[in-house]
Amino acid sequence: MISDRNEVTSMILSAKVSKGIKWHQVAEAIGMSKEWTTAGCLGQMTFNRAQAERVGEIFGLSDEAVAWLQVVPYKGSLPTAVPTDPLLYRWYEIVSVYGTTIKELIHEEFGDGIMSAIDFSMDIQREADPKGDRVNVVLSGKFLPYKSY
Amino acid sequence: MISDRNEVTSMILSAKVSKGIKWHQVAEAIGMSKEWTTAGCLGQMTFNRAQAERVGEIFGLSDEAVAWLQVVPYKGSLPTAVPTDPLLYRWYEIVSVYGTTIKELIHEEFGDGIMSAIDFSMDIQREADPKGDRVNVVLSGKFLPYKSY
Amino acid sequence: MISDRNEVTSMILSAKVSKGIKWHQVAEAIGMSKEWTTAGCLGQMTFNRAQAERVGEIFGLSDEAVAWLQVVPYKGSLPTAVPTDPLLYRWYEIVSVYGTTIKELIHEEFGDGIMSAIDFSMDIQREADPKGDRVNVVLSGKFLPYKSY
Amino acid sequence: MISDRNEVTSMILSAKVSKGIKWHQVAEAIGMSKEWTTAGCLGQMTFNRAQAERVGEIFGLSDEAVAWLQVVPYKGSLPTAVPTDPLLYRWYEIVSVYGTTIKELIHEEFGDGIMSAIDFSMDIQREADPKGDRVNVVLSGKFLPYKSY
Amino acid sequence: MISDRNEVTSMILSAKVSKGIKWHQVAEAIGMSKEWTTAGCLGQMTFNRAQAERVGEIFGLSDEAVAWLQVVPYKGSLPTAVPTDPLLYRWYEIVSVYGTTIKELIHEEFGDGIMSAIDFSMDIQREADPKGDRVNVVLSGKFLPYKSY
Amino acid sequence: MISDRNEVTSMILSAKVSKGIKWHQVAEAIGMSKEWTTAGCLGQMTFNRAQAERVGEIFGLSDEAVAWLQVVPYKGSLPTAVPTDPLLYRWYEIVSVYGTTIKELIHEEFGDGIMSAIDFSMDIQREADPKGDRVNVVLSGKFLPYKSY
Amino acid sequence: MISDRNEVTSMILSAKVSKGIKWHQVAEAIGMSKEWTTAGCLGQMTFNRAQAERVGEIFGLSDEAVAWLQVVPYKGSLPTAVPTDPLLYRWYEIVSVYGTTIKELIHEEFGDGIMSAIDFSMDIQREADPKGDRVNVVLSGKFLPYKSY
Amino acid sequence: MISDRNEVTSMILSAKVSKGIKWHQVAEAIGMSKEWTTAGCLGQMTFNRAQAERVGEIFGLSDEAVAWLQVVPYKGSLPTAVPTDPLLYRWYEIVSVYGTTIKELIHEEFGDGIMSAIDFSMDIQREADPKGDRVNVVLSGKFLPYKSY
Amino acid sequence: MISDRNEVTSMILSAKVSKGIKWHQVAEAIGMSKEWTTAGCLGQMTFNRAQAERVGEIFGLSDEAVAWLQVVPYKGSLPTAVPTDPLLYRWYEIVSVYGTTIKELIHEEFGDGIMSAIDFSMDIQREADPKGDRVNVVLSGKFLPYKSY
Amino acid sequence: MISDRNEVTSMILSAKVSKGIKWHQVAEAIGMSKEWTTAGCLGQMTFNRAQAERVGEIFGLSDEAVAWLQVVPYKGSLPTAVPTDPLLYRWYEIVSVYGTTIKELIHEEFGDGIMSAIDFSMDIQREADPKGDRVNVVLSGKFLPYKSY
Repeated sequence: MISDRNEVTSMILSAKVSKGIKWHQVAEAIGMSKEWTTAGCLGQMTFNRAQAERVGEIFGLSDEAVAWLQVVPYKGSLPTAVPTDPLLYRWYEIVSVYGTTIKELIHEEFGDGIMSAIDFSMDIQREADPKGDRVNVVLSGKFLPYKSY
Repeated sequence: MISDRNEVTSMILSAKVSKGIKWHQVAEAIGMSKEWTTAGCLGQMTFNRAQAERVGEIFGLSDEAVAWLQVVPYKGSLPTAVPTDPLLYRWYEIVSVYGTTIKELIHEEFGDGIMSAIDFSMDIQREADPKGDRVNVVLSGKFLPYKSY
Repeated sequence: MISDRNEVTSMILSAKVSKGIKWHQVAEAIGMSKEWTTAGCLGQMTFNRAQAERVGEIFGLSDEAVAWLQVVPYKGSLPTAVPTDPLLYRWYEIVSVYGTTIKELIHEEFGDGIMSAIDFSMDIQREADPKGDRVNVVLSGKFLPYKSY
Repeated sequence: MISDRNEVTSMILSAKVSKGIKWHQVAEAIGMSKEWTTAGCLGQMTFNRAQAERVGEIFGLSDEAVAWLQVVPYKGSLPTAVPTDPLLYRWYEIVSVYGTTIKELIHEEFGDGIMSAIDFSMDIQREADPKGDRVNVVLSGKFLPYKSY
Repeated sequence: MISDRNEVTSMILSAKVSKGIKWHQVAEAIGMSKEWTTAGCLGQMTFNRAQAERVGEIFGLSDEAVAWLQVVPYKGSLPTAVPTDPLLYRWYEIVSVYGTTIKELIHEEFGDGIMSAIDFSMDIQREADPKGDRVNVVLSGKFLPYKSY
Repeated sequence: MISDRNEVTSMILSAKVSKGIKWHQVAEAIGMSKEWTTAGCLGQMTFNRAQAERVGEIFGLSDEAVAWLQVVPYKGSLPTAVPTDPLLYRWYEIVSVYGTTIKELIHEEFGDGIMSAIDFSMDIQREADPKGDRVNVVLSGKFLPYKSY
Repeated sequence: MISDRNEVTSMILSAKVSKGIKWHQVAEAIGMSKEWTTAGCLGQMTFNRAQAERVGEIFGLSDEAVAWLQVVPYKGSLPTAVPTDPLLYRWYEIVSVYGTTIKELIHEEFGDGIMSAIDFSMDIQREADPKGDRVNVVLSGKFLPYKSY
Repeated sequence: MISDRNEVTSMILSAKVSKGIKWHQVAEAIGMSKEWTTAGCLGQMTFNRAQAERVGEIFGLSDEAVAWLQVVPYKGSLPTAVPTDPLLYRWYEIVSVYGTTIKELIHEEFGDGIMSAIDFSMDIQREADPKGDRVNVVLSGKFLPYKSY
Repeated sequence: MISDRNEVTSMILSAKVSKGIKWHQVAEAIGMSKEWTTAGCLGQMTFNRAQAERVGEIFGLSDEAVAWLQVVPYKGSLPTAVPTDPLLYRWYEIVSVYGTTIKELIHEEFGDGIMSAIDFSMDIQREADPKGDRVNVVLSGKFLPYKSY
Repeated sequence: MISDRNEVTSMILSAKVSKGIKWHQVAEAIGMSKEWTTAGCLGQMTFNRAQAERVGEIFGLSDEAVAWLQVVPYKGSLPTAVPTDPLLYRWYEIVSVYGTTIKELIHEEFGDGIMSAIDFSMDIQREADPKGDRVNVVLSGKFLPYKSY
C-alpha cells in the first residue's frame, strides 16, 4: 500500500543506484528535458500516463507506483528550510546575498510583479574554462505583473 | 557616527528615491555590471576607492559613508530566513522544488563538489515573448570539486 | 530622510486615525477597489504617480513620501510567520485545516499548477443573515499550469 | 490496531489512487459539498455514522477505520508552519500580503471581531476566461463580534 | 505622531506606575469588568468613545492617543510564542499538558467544534484556603459547532 | 517491548475507538474526576497500582502496559509549540491575547508569584444558554508567592 | 517616561559600571542575599518600598525608576531561547544532558511532581581546590506533588 | 543490528519498568553515584567495560548492547530545545530567570570564564521540611578562566 | 532496498562497534587521511570504486551498500541546527564567539572573499602538555576572492 | 549613558573605519595576539585596565567606554543562529559536515570529553600557494575529560 509520493521517489532512487541509471537517459527515453524529468522522478512534477509507464519500466516500478507518478505531488524537496547540503546551500546563499539585487533589477526593468516559478524552465550546462570549468544555469520565467483592480 | 554598513545602504536607498536615480546609471558610471553594482549599493559587495567615491558623488554621501563602502560587509540581504516578498519567495521556491534536481544533475555531470557562489556572476535580461515577456537569468559559477586528502 | 516604505505606512496610519479617514473613501478618491487601495496604503502595492499624489493629499504626506508610494515595496504585512491576531489567525487556520482540500480540488479540476496570487483579486462583502451577518470573500486568481519542457 | 486518524487518511489516499476515485464522486455519494467531503476524507472533519459507512464502502475500509472517521480529529493538514507546496504557499502568501488589508476592511465594515473559521463554508469553481481560466473561491464565515463584559 | 497602538499601551503603563492607579479602579470608572478593561488598556480590546475618553482622563492621554483607543488593535500581547514569564508560562503549560484532555472532554460533551475565544469572558477571583489561597479562574466561551455543508 | 509511555497512550486510544468507551465511564470506574482521569489515560498523569489495573482491564492492556501507567511520564501532549488544532489554538490564543491581563490582575490581587499548574484542578461543564450553549471551565491553582531570601 | 522595567535595568547597569559598585555591596545594603538582590536589580524580582529606595540611592535612580522597581516585572533575562553566552550555555547544557537524569531521580525519591522554581533559593560559593577552584551552587526548591482529584 | 545508543537506552528503560529496577540499585551495583549512573543508563555517559557488563547483566542486555554502552554517545537528552515537561521546564526557567544573575555573580567572584559542565558533578538530596520537603541539589563545576594570548 | 545514504552509515556504525574497528585503521586500508575517511564513512564524502569496495570488505557491506558509497550524499551530519552534543557545541561556540574576529582578520589579510570549505583539509592531533594534553586542529582552506564583473 | 557592551563595539567599529586603523596594529600596541585583541575589541573578551586604556586611546573612547571594556561581556557575536555571511557560513558548514567526524576522531584519541573553547587559542595565517593562497588556521584547545563520580 503506497500512500505518499515520497515512497515512489525512494523506490526510484534505490533502483537508480542498483542499476546504474543516469537521469539524462531517462529524459531521452521520455523525450523531455533532463531538468524536468529529474524533477519528476524526484517527486516534484506530474507525469502523464505514457511518461509514467515509461519511467515505471526503466526503474521496475509496480502499477500502483506508476499510478502515483500521475498524481500531483505535495512539492518541496528539501528536508530543512535552510538546506544543509553545501551545493544547495550555495543556491540559497545566492538568494540571500543577491536577493534584494534581483528584486531591484527586475522591478527597474518590468515594474511591480514577479518572475514565475510555474511558467518556468531551467537549463544546466557545463562551460569549459581553462581556469576551471563552470556550471552555467539559465533560468527563464514569465514575468507576471501585479494586477490592480 | 556610522557603525554599520546598513546605515549607508539606507542613505543610498533614500537618495535613490528622492533623486530618481536608476541602478543601471550607477553601473555605467563606475563601469561595472548592473548586477554587481546594485549588490554593492545594497551592502553586499565591497567597492574599491575609485568606485566608492563615484558612488558617493552620485548619492551625495559623506566621506565617512564612502569609507564604509570600501569595508567588507556582513552579507545577507533578507530580513527573514524564508523571504516573505513574493518575487524573492519564487526564487526560494525554485531552490525548494528543484533543489534535489539541481544537485543530481550537477553531480551527474561534474561529480562531487559545488557551484561557487563566490566566483560567480549573474546576468538578468528581458526576453520579448508574444505570450508575455520573460525574465531570463544566467547564473555562472565555477565548479569546485571536493578535495580528498 | 525616508529609507523604507514602512515609514510611509506609519505616516498613513497615523494620519488616518487623527483625521478619521475611511479606506473606502480613499478608494473612491483614486478610483480603484477598496481592497487594492488599502493594500497599497499599507505598503503592499505600488501606486502610479497620479494615485500616489492623490493619496498624499488625503493623508498630508511629503513629496518624499509620495515618491516612495511609487516604489515597489518589499511585501509581507505580518510581524510573525504565524499571525497572533485572532482575525488573521482564522485565515491562517483555513489554510492549515483546508489546505490539502484546496490542493486536491484545484488539481482535480485543473491538473498540476497553482492559483495565482499575482493575477489575483479579492472582494470582501457583508451578507445579511438573520442568524448573524456573514463576511463573504471572493478570491479570484488565474490558474497557472506547470510548464513541462 | 489504528491509533491515529492519519492512518485512516493514508488508507483513503492509497485506495483513491489505486481505484481512480474522484473527490466529487465521494461528495455525491454522501450528499454533501465536495469541499467538506474532501476535508473529511483528508482527516479534518468528522463524519456521522451513515456518511462514514458510505465512505468506508467507497474506499474499502475496515470497521475500525470507519469508527475512526466518526471521531473528532486533531486538525491541521500541513506538514510545516509555512507550507512548501507552491499551490498552498500562494494561499499563505495571500494572508501574508493582504492580511492587514483584510483586517482593516472587515473592521471598517463590522467593528472588532473575527470572521469565523468554524461556522464557515467554501466553494471552489472554475471561471472560464479567454485570457486563461480562473480559480474562483468564495469563503463565507459568520462575523463574530468580540464580547465586552 | 502615533502610528501603533503599542505606543498608547506604553503611555498607559508609564502613567499607571507614576500615579499608582489600580486596574480595578479603571474598570469601575468605565463600568466594565476588570478583566475586559485591563485587556483594553493593554492594547487587546477596542473601547467606545465614552470609555476611551474616560480612560484618557484617568491616565492623562492626548486626544490622538484617545482616538487610537477606539481603533481595533493588532492583538497578541506576548513577546515570544512560548512565554518566558513564569506566571504566563504556567498557563501555556496547562494548554500543553492538559490540551488533549480539554479537547477530548469538550468533544465528548459537545461533538466537533470549538469553545469560542471571541464570545468569551473570564473572571479571576481569590479563594481563601487555609493551605494557601488559590487563584480561581472561570472561563466561559460559547460552543461553536463545525458547520457541515 | 514498551519503552515509552506514548505507546501505551496509542493502545488506549485504539481500544477506546474500537470499543466505544467514554472518558467519563473510565473516571467513574476509578473514582476520580473525568479531567484528571483523561489526562492520565492520555499519558500526562501517573496512576497508582489500583487505578492502573482498573484502566488496564477497561482497555484490555498487557501487564507491561499497566506497569508503564504507574511510571511518571514525560509530559507535554501537543505535537507543536503552537497547536494547529482549532479547539486547542483558541486556548493558546486566550493566553496570547489575555496573557498580560491575567498577569496584571493576579499580581494586583496577590503580589509577585504564580498560579500553580501542579497544585491545580480543572472542571469542564456545559452551561445551557438559549443563544447557544457555553463551555464553562473552572481553573483552580494555588497561589505560590516568590520567595525572597 | 519609563514604560518598561528593562529601562530601569539599563540605568542600573550603566551606573554600576560608572561607579564601580559590586552586587554583594548592594545585597548588604538591603539585607538580602546577593543572589536575590542581583536578580532584582537585573529586573527579575520585585523590591518592597524600603529596598527599592535603598537601591535607588545606591544607583542614583529617579523616583519614577524607584516606583518601577516595586512593580512585578515580566521575567526572563536572556535574549534567546538557547543562550549564546558560554557561561550561561553551560547551564543550559546541564539541563540538556542531565535533564532526564534529574527527572528520573527526583521522581524515584518523591514521586510525580516538580521542584519549585518559585519557592526556591540559590547559593553560589567558591570552593578552593588545588586542581583549580570550583564554583559550587546549591539549589533548593520545595517539592510540589501533582494534585490528583 | 544496533546503530544508535538511543536503541540501548530504550532497552534499558523497557527492562527497568518490567523488572521494577531502581536507579540507586544500579548505582550501588557499579559503585558510582546515582546521578552519574543514571545519566549513563540514559545514554549521556560512557561506561567502562566492567561497568557496562554489570549494567548489561542487570537489565539483561545483549553483547552488542553492552558494546554500545562503552561508546561515547551523542549527548543531549531532551526532545525539544525548550523542554515541555514541567519538572524539566522549571530547570530551564531557572536558567532563564536567574541566568544573568548567575553570570554576574560568578564573574564578580572569579572574573571572566565559565563553570565547567564537564569537570562537573551533581548531588540530589531530599531535605525534610515541616512546610513541605525540599529538593536540594548541589552543582559543582571547576572554574575555567578564559585564556588570553 | 536502500534508498538513502544514511542507511549505509547506520550499517557502518553498527559493524564498527560490533567488530571494534578503529577509524585510523580504515584510513590506512584505503590510503587516505583519517579525517577524510571518517567523513566518508559517516556519509559526508564520496568514495571511488576501489575505496568503496575496500570499505565494504572492512565493514561487511552488501554490493548495494557499496554502490551507495560511490553516490554523492546529501551532506550535513548533525540532527539539529545548533548541536546539543557538548563536544560539537564547543565548535559551534567558537564560530559564535570568534566569528566576527575570524571575518575581520581574514578580510584584513586577504580582502573580500571566503575560506573554502570545499578545497579544504583538516588535521586533528594530540599535543602533549604537562597542564593537560591539548587537541590541536589545523584547518586549511583555499582563499576564494569575490568576483567582481 | 552606556548600558551595554555592544554600544562600545559600535564606537570602536566607527572609529576604526574613520581613522583607518588595522587590528594587528591594535594587537601590537597592547602586546597580545591579533586574534584575542580583535575578539576583545568586538565585545567578546575582557581587557584589563592597562589594555582597556590603550585601546581607548587608539579609538578615542570616553572613560565610561573604557570602563565597559573591563566588564565581562555577554558573548556571542552573530546576529542569527545560522550565520548568513558567506565567510562565516563556511565555518558553520565545516561544523555541520565534519561535526560527527571531529567527534569520532577526538573520542578515538582521547576518550569521552571535549576540546575546550575557553582554554583555547587560535592562529590565522596566510599560506602562499601557486594554485591560490590558502587560509591556515590552527585551533588549540585543552582536552577536558568528562568527570565520573
